[in-house]
Amino acid sequence: MALMHYPVINKNGKVIASAITNLDLHDIARVAKTYGVEKFYVVTPLKDQQDLIHRIVSHWTKGIGSRYNPKRRQALETIQVGTTLGEILQDIATQQGQAPKSVATSAQPAGDVISFQAMRQMLTNGIPHLLLFGTAWGLSDACIEAADYRLASITGNTGYNHLSVRSASAIILDRLLGGRNERS
Amino acid sequence: MALMHYPVINKNGKVIASAITNLDLHDIARVAKTYGVEKFYVVTPLKDQQDLIHRIVSHWTKGIGSRYNPKRRQALETIQVGTTLGEILQDIATQQGQAPKSVATSAQPAGDVISFQAMRQMLTNGIPHLLLFGTAWGLSDACIEAADYRLASITGNTGYNHLSVRSASAIILDRLLGGRNERS
Repeated sequence: MALMHYPVINKNGKVIASAITNLDLHDIARVAKTYGVEKFYVVTPLKDQQDLIHRIVSHWTKGIGSRYNPKRRQALETIQVGTTLGEILQDIATQQGQAPKSVATSAQPAGDVISFQAMRQMLTNGIPHLLLFGTAWGLSDACIEAADYRLASITGNTGYNHLSVRSASAIILDRLLGGRNERS
Repeated sequence: MALMHYPVINKNGKVIASAITNLDLHDIARVAKTYGVEKFYVVTPLKDQQDLIHRIVSHWTKGIGSRYNPKRRQALETIQVGTTLGEILQDIATQQGQAPKSVATSAQPAGDVISFQAMRQMLTNGIPHLLLFGTAWGLSDACIEAADYRLASITGNTGYNHLSVRSASAIILDRLLGGRNERS
């Protein structure tokens, strides 16, 4: 999975590079570890933001944080810094021996989406998949359109549809990878 | 639902009153609003912490935050400050005309738990239910034992079981209240 800080949109729909949020790294790494996600890429083209990720991860994986809370260390060890989407797609292809399929997520409803059930099934087909999550106001349209698949948006049981990326990624991983016998 | 800051345990198992985390309020209120939870109680016996909750909520529901982000306002309007569990159980009983059933959540596996499927069914029986979430290292044993039900713990597909309360509450509400046709 990848948490994208570029290209994402701001409140006004303009493409921006967003800032790292410390709790995104912790919460999403813990979800990734819980559901057996192989790698959690945190993607930003900004060098100072990459340095910040390295500092946070290093504190919890090598620094005093790793001794204070070893469970947190295990989670944050899944994090890898990425510069661009292209770079991490290449990284996965090199490691897995085949190109991954990319799966965009978005809170915006759209026609041409793949259902959670269908994607859950696809994840068992032996091909690596990369789930893309947008920070700020979400992935840019171009980023979503360039992906191999666009996952259905989460709807609760109201018309309200404004989850944090932390909450949305937790729900999505549970729907795609959670134990079947626990689910209704 | 209620986010409990007391009685919860710290890393060493001692019962403490934990501090408010700003992002808990935002993330969980947005999840609550998405899944149609009637009220999101944030419970702490500490007066200064109650004041802090009021200040955060007021910024987003009445202050400049409410104009900057009206969607956030709608979510944070679900928040109500509570002093003790007893007080909010009474508040619900008064408003609903019948005493609620309380449902403790915990990351610790236990024998006598109710499954997600069974609880999902119970939530349709017309009786008010109050879901309890613990901050810090989780609800105290006494608090869990005093609840009417103890919900099964979330397991992903690994042995790792250390989600943030933000992630866990998102997954639990989706399992209990998420649209059936979206789920596998």
